[in-house]
Amino acid sequence: MKEKRKKTNAIFIGSVKIGDGAPVTVQSMTSTDTRDVASTAAQINRMQEAGCEIVRVAVVDMKAADAVSEIQQRINIPLIADIHFDYRLALRVLERGADAIRINPGNIDREHLLAVIRTARDRDIPIRIGINSGSLEKDILARHGGPTSSALVESALRNAAFFEEQDFHLIKLSLKSSHVPTMIDAYRQISKRTEHPLHLGVTEAGGLLHSAIKSSIGLGVLLHEGIGDTIRVSVTGDPVQEIPVAYGILRALDIRKVGPDIISCPTCGRCEIDLPALAAKVEDRLDGMKNYMKIALMGCVVNGPGEAAEADIGIAGGRHSGVLFKKGKVIRKIQENEFVDVLMDEIHAMVMQSEKKED
Amino acid sequence: MKEKRKKTNAIFIGSVKIGDGAPVTVQSMTSTDTRDVASTAAQINRMQEAGCEIVRVAVVDMKAADAVSEIQQRINIPLIADIHFDYRLALRVLERGADAIRINPGNIDREHLLAVIRTARDRDIPIRIGINSGSLEKDILARHGGPTSSALVESALRNAAFFEEQDFHLIKLSLKSSHVPTMIDAYRQISKRTEHPLHLGVTEAGGLLHSAIKSSIGLGVLLHEGIGDTIRVSVTGDPVQEIPVAYGILRALDIRKVGPDIISCPTCGRCEIDLPALAAKVEDRLDGMKNYMKIALMGCVVNGPGEAAEADIGIAGGRHSGVLFKKGKVIRKIQENEFVDVLMDEIHAMVMQSEKKED
Repeated sequence: MKEKRKKTNAIFIGSVKIGDGAPVTVQSMTSTDTRDVASTAAQINRMQEAGCEIVRVAVVDMKAADAVSEIQQRINIPLIADIHFDYRLALRVLERGADAIRINPGNIDREHLLAVIRTARDRDIPIRIGINSGSLEKDILARHGGPTSSALVESALRNAAFFEEQDFHLIKLSLKSSHVPTMIDAYRQISKRTEHPLHLGVTEAGGLLHSAIKSSIGLGVLLHEGIGDTIRVSVTGDPVQEIPVAYGILRALDIRKVGPDIISCPTCGRCEIDLPALAAKVEDRLDGMKNYMKIALMGCVVNGPGEAAEADIGIAGGRHSGVLFKKGKVIRKIQENEFVDVLMDEIHAMVMQSEKKED
Repeated sequence: MKEKRKKTNAIFIGSVKIGDGAPVTVQSMTSTDTRDVASTAAQINRMQEAGCEIVRVAVVDMKAADAVSEIQQRINIPLIADIHFDYRLALRVLERGADAIRINPGNIDREHLLAVIRTARDRDIPIRIGINSGSLEKDILARHGGPTSSALVESALRNAAFFEEQDFHLIKLSLKSSHVPTMIDAYRQISKRTEHPLHLGVTEAGGLLHSAIKSSIGLGVLLHEGIGDTIRVSVTGDPVQEIPVAYGILRALDIRKVGPDIISCPTCGRCEIDLPALAAKVEDRLDGMKNYMKIALMGCVVNGPGEAAEADIGIAGGRHSGVLFKKGKVIRKIQENEFVDVLMDEIHAMVMQSEKKED
């Protein structure tokens, strides 16, 4: 039912493998001023706590470039320096030991790019060629009549070829658009024409809820087809919010089983317990949990026992009371005021047991 | 690039056409006690205000069945009565003029179902055959070893055939699962094997954000392939919240252009305006707007002008100031404290102008 992952080459960002069958990694980008080392490192550590595996920071000037190595000393995940316009910033961060750089070939000229590629090649540092519909080369835009999917693909292939001609192969590609069908089509096309690993993202996707919608469609369609090696969900706001959305997408498609999967019904005129309150409390209490577990919170008996049978643990509501299920077996009847505490105790015990098994 | 919509038969829920190329409609379901006519009608009217086009209510007993026609007198969108277990409730609401009913064949026996089908046939009232992984027939579950996609498809086909044998054809099908890949696969299979219109949904999808993720993937994959005639996003909580998510999915895929499409960047170390605050204010001020418009809120010049060129209106930020764009043209420079008011004035004027044109 699930398509096989498309074969791509492997690259390493620090110690994190991308491509060639490695788990699809979750990335994000800081929103702090990179020159403010303390704030940036603090934000990255919050991102890592939430599950972020690779982080990117904007390098706007030499001061930001110099801050990169200081930030790296204070964090525990690989760092990618994001460079636009000024190739000298790229050279500086490569010399200072960034784990990777991201450049936008639409805004750095060829001659300067050569210097960047040679330096990265000498130091075995990967480069993401980040194509973006908002900053495509003028000749490509003119030929395609705008930032179409084919325009994104032409830009990506042209730039990848230029890097390869310099015998540089530690390439990762992204082809981002804020228009979901364009982004889907661009990645589908490029996936057939390259073995470079792909970084997926819908760009400028908006606030949390709207980004979750656009990113889930764009990334979801592609990941379900086996396309994509690393992902970023872009949210206007605190980037820490991006991480649970990214894992939510991967979890929904059985690509990575991280965090609790809460199955809860929308409630209807049949529901005689306060399910929205229960679901909100359970979600809140499980915030940050990394262990995978399927938890069913069902308002009534219509689908309750059926869904609960598929879940690791669940409650099916009755009249101000409910039945606790574990892996399809009824454990006992419980009262509504006990729901949260009983569930938390059981979940805690199950997590302890599974971790004990792994030891 | 966009797949053609799959051909389906047309049915009418009240005056709303479903299938055969009609716009993909947005449905929801009340969470009130249906016997409480005032609360239920009030909730439905809030749902309609948000854009809900068809509503479903749970009919748990005869009192709820009798409330249906009273509710219908107080609302302006078609009403579907949701029936489980007791076929007499179906007969009652059919006699009282429900616009459609939804039944779950997994919990009504064949003999009683016959009476329901004949009554609906005599009155030309459509029926949704709502297959759900949580309540599949026992023999099907046993044969497939669980609620697999093929099990859902077998149940749907078997039940649709039973209805057709009674010369009843006003059928709509749904094959819901809380497991997204199962749901995607089930709808893909059934879409090849039937021309009945399809109601799409991921069931028991959880709270707002998690439902948005699962629903966007499940519905998004299918809608992008041309599958699906009407949709429901299930959220644990106030059902009014489901509507913007549903339209967000349809808008992201260019299937229905309803409401503002806000393109806003995630911000990074380059951003010198408070973009998250701006985006939140704009989103808040445009809440409930039905007119389609592409609005770009960009933190800096990297992709700002490019994205703004694609948008109906946009701002690209600079140092505590920004540039206002309209359809790719720079209108003027504005200060950060004017951003929201200037944007709202311009958007308001553009909406007025487009409505004037339509007159």
